[in-house]
Amino acid sequence: MCRFLAYLGEPILLEDLVCKPRHSLVRQSLRAEEAKTITNGDGFGVGWYGERESPGVYHEVMPAWSDENLLALCANVRSRLFFAHVRAATGGGISRQNCHPFHHGPYMFIHNGQIGGYPQVRRGLEALLPDPHYENRRGGTDSELLFLLTVARIDGGMPVIDAVRSVLHDTVDLMRAKGITAPLRFAAALADGEQAWAFRWASDDQPPTLYLKPQRGGWAVASEPLGDDAEAWSPIAPDQMIHLRAGQQNAYALV
Amino acid sequence: MCRFLAYLGEPILLEDLVCKPRHSLVRQSLRAEEAKTITNGDGFGVGWYGERESPGVYHEVMPAWSDENLLALCANVRSRLFFAHVRAATGGGISRQNCHPFHHGPYMFIHNGQIGGYPQVRRGLEALLPDPHYENRRGGTDSELLFLLTVARIDGGMPVIDAVRSVLHDTVDLMRAKGITAPLRFAAALADGEQAWAFRWASDDQPPTLYLKPQRGGWAVASEPLGDDAEAWSPIAPDQMIHLRAGQQNAYALV
Amino acid sequence: MCRFLAYLGEPILLEDLVCKPRHSLVRQSLRAEEAKTITNGDGFGVGWYGERESPGVYHEVMPAWSDENLLALCANVRSRLFFAHVRAATGGGISRQNCHPFHHGPYMFIHNGQIGGYPQVRRGLEALLPDPHYENRRGGTDSELLFLLTVARIDGGMPVIDAVRSVLHDTVDLMRAKGITAPLRFAAALADGEQAWAFRWASDDQPPTLYLKPQRGGWAVASEPLGDDAEAWSPIAPDQMIHLRAGQQNAYALV
Amino acid sequence: MCRFLAYLGEPILLEDLVCKPRHSLVRQSLRAEEAKTITNGDGFGVGWYGERESPGVYHEVMPAWSDENLLALCANVRSRLFFAHVRAATGGGISRQNCHPFHHGPYMFIHNGQIGGYPQVRRGLEALLPDPHYENRRGGTDSELLFLLTVARIDGGMPVIDAVRSVLHDTVDLMRAKGITAPLRFAAALADGEQAWAFRWASDDQPPTLYLKPQRGGWAVASEPLGDDAEAWSPIAPDQMIHLRAGQQNAYALV
Repeated sequence: MCRFLAYLGEPILLEDLVCKPRHSLVRQSLRAEEAKTITNGDGFGVGWYGERESPGVYHEVMPAWSDENLLALCANVRSRLFFAHVRAATGGGISRQNCHPFHHGPYMFIHNGQIGGYPQVRRGLEALLPDPHYENRRGGTDSELLFLLTVARIDGGMPVIDAVRSVLHDTVDLMRAKGITAPLRFAAALADGEQAWAFRWASDDQPPTLYLKPQRGGWAVASEPLGDDAEAWSPIAPDQMIHLRAGQQNAYALV
Repeated sequence: MCRFLAYLGEPILLEDLVCKPRHSLVRQSLRAEEAKTITNGDGFGVGWYGERESPGVYHEVMPAWSDENLLALCANVRSRLFFAHVRAATGGGISRQNCHPFHHGPYMFIHNGQIGGYPQVRRGLEALLPDPHYENRRGGTDSELLFLLTVARIDGGMPVIDAVRSVLHDTVDLMRAKGITAPLRFAAALADGEQAWAFRWASDDQPPTLYLKPQRGGWAVASEPLGDDAEAWSPIAPDQMIHLRAGQQNAYALV
Repeated sequence: MCRFLAYLGEPILLEDLVCKPRHSLVRQSLRAEEAKTITNGDGFGVGWYGERESPGVYHEVMPAWSDENLLALCANVRSRLFFAHVRAATGGGISRQNCHPFHHGPYMFIHNGQIGGYPQVRRGLEALLPDPHYENRRGGTDSELLFLLTVARIDGGMPVIDAVRSVLHDTVDLMRAKGITAPLRFAAALADGEQAWAFRWASDDQPPTLYLKPQRGGWAVASEPLGDDAEAWSPIAPDQMIHLRAGQQNAYALV
Repeated sequence: MCRFLAYLGEPILLEDLVCKPRHSLVRQSLRAEEAKTITNGDGFGVGWYGERESPGVYHEVMPAWSDENLLALCANVRSRLFFAHVRAATGGGISRQNCHPFHHGPYMFIHNGQIGGYPQVRRGLEALLPDPHYENRRGGTDSELLFLLTVARIDGGMPVIDAVRSVLHDTVDLMRAKGITAPLRFAAALADGEQAWAFRWASDDQPPTLYLKPQRGGWAVASEPLGDDAEAWSPIAPDQMIHLRAGQQNAYALV
């Protein structure tokens, strides 16, 4: 399991959420409180939208807590929409290519959870990727695969919620066909540069935690609350998708 | 293009070939003489057989010339059969998973060259991998793919030369089917812990350079001669496979 | 020897100088044309001023040419004053702490050159550092030491040109006292967030190259011209300091 | 605080202590049980004596738990005398130069603990280093400094126990002169290729834990027991030095 956060709102310094809160994501990399794995030290990444259509993305295999570059970057980059992720590797080796956020065109994605029995279904899932998205596969994680499958369907014209639903559905089908009983767990966030979507779902009844908080005329989403203002964070209900845009957020049933 | 060396013979310190010669592989990482890319600084690796059936393998994304761990390792590890490789990335990002030698069971492999139009044929080639070898795919390079395809056929009972021949043949077929005119180039070495094979071949008439030299009751193979004794190194003829065992070497037509 | 560039002017994306020119600094990391060492692959760094008094600084031990983070950063960060540096290690191991730019409070510094006989004079030079600057020593390079000595004198009230002059003078004195005949060579740039200074000097008559070019209502300084517009770059004369501010540049005799 | 282990006895694979035990040092890097810092993920190192007078040393800034090179190295290197160390950084940045074991000539050293108020006494301690040892200072840690001071005295003819005693004494004197009340804590091991010494001491009454266990005709020393055989490990008494040689171990009062 991993820890992540997402922000959409007035431009703020990344450090306001990534580094400064008492229980910031950097702190969670060393000592998470609600995660199955306490330490999330197998690399990390941040991605942010600035002047361009596609995000700037920084990946590193070192633990977030010991990377001075991350502190410098977060102290000097201001963004209206950014993601950050600290990794506890479950499948796939330690490499930058396996660090979140993944990105493709204007899209960016972070994930906490995993595909049960991934080695057995990986091949079948990769077979579902259209050629252009297959060529864009850079690492070996289940998370990147879920992302590319989703983007492929969005690129094909599907609404975001339908794309995610159908990818989760197809994945579970493949898992069942292989007789896998381990669950598919999926807390995730997706952005396109203007809006963001957060997802909380699992094929069993234990989706990873995910919280939402109003923040500076916008919202922050995080695997666990970031600090002293614990009561300001509301759990996102299981099986929900939250759609975040400037000035509004809407919840939808994911299944 | 990359640079590599292979050794089979009486146990010697790795540094005797990797670090100490005037034009050692470490030196070639900074300044190769016969390579298309002068600098081979996109990671490196060494692999050696010791007491176990499978080799010990060390991969690093830093350039070989600046890695003190490599010097320490090579000054202290003695082996009868080892490979070393410095990389100039052509396809696939910089990661340890993309560094040679690749290994699987008792087999170890290094490669210099590339599959023309790799992004277009990658998918088709990966489809040829049996499931167990597909699951063992760790990076994204063409070299690892050629290795796993070869090992899959060896594991299936094919002699080494036939396995390599058929993999090269199938790859060229796929390239042609995709209308790729860029060549497949293949200088490589394979080992199983007891014996080693060196290959020099290309689909056009320009196979990467490869040299052979008697060394300490055994042989060294290298992309370019390692130093002052240039005349002791003989070019391996194009389209040949050299089979190296204790006390003997034999050349075979590869095609 | 290393390669560096400095920019002061209207805010531009870092990539406009660091990555995009035909002979950009990233390109020079792999293949410099006027340097004693062709490859500058022993780490690199960029530093830029944004909203804060002190600069954001990014250091990495990988070669600049293979770091995707650098591309992403430079494509998304815009600054009115920034430095970039690719390193060919002469003294001091490969570590982020030994990568330029060095920074202290509002000051940032990059250097190409070296102190002849550094191991013999290092101790004597370090003894000249006041305690607070000694405590801020993070790596082991001669460059960081020249920077901290300079900043200590500026902090003590000395004008920049006098601080640099006296540090160079004291260093040469120490070298002579130790009987060192190798030269002190010094192409460097210093910034304080508002203005920048470029220096070209050597204790023999062979100072490292340094060029100046008007750029976007400001100036770029570089170890060698960045591209097609070679004629737009003027060599900075030996033994000179160039003082760069918004709208003006002035040259001073450094000795 | 960090975690370490030392072994002297019949040659064994490093993995027998570093990787394989239930509570191995690799496991302790992620989840130590008796340490002030649970996670020791700020780099690590192993050092071993083989055919040469000086040890082979491998340093890495990644956490030990995620480094496949470490597993490969430990599975293939056999030694009669080796050290391993996982770091939780207290002073000094994350760099290979700051990773243990430190080495100089035939000597190798690992340390758990710290010099209270190190930034204030660092300069005074460095002033005690003779020139040749000062020139060998590669990083910025208190541990390396304690090592070089000790080796300088051993090189000057002092017995090991007197060298360590006098270094600890001088350090405490300097701390007092600076009015530092934080303690000097020192669990450490030193080797010269034939014999090893383990130390447990603190200037207050809280020396870091250190355990001793007979192992394969020799001994293992560790910050905490390595696994199921907890009862086989005896705490080393505070203020003691254990001298380990082939076939014998002797305890001495350290103060």
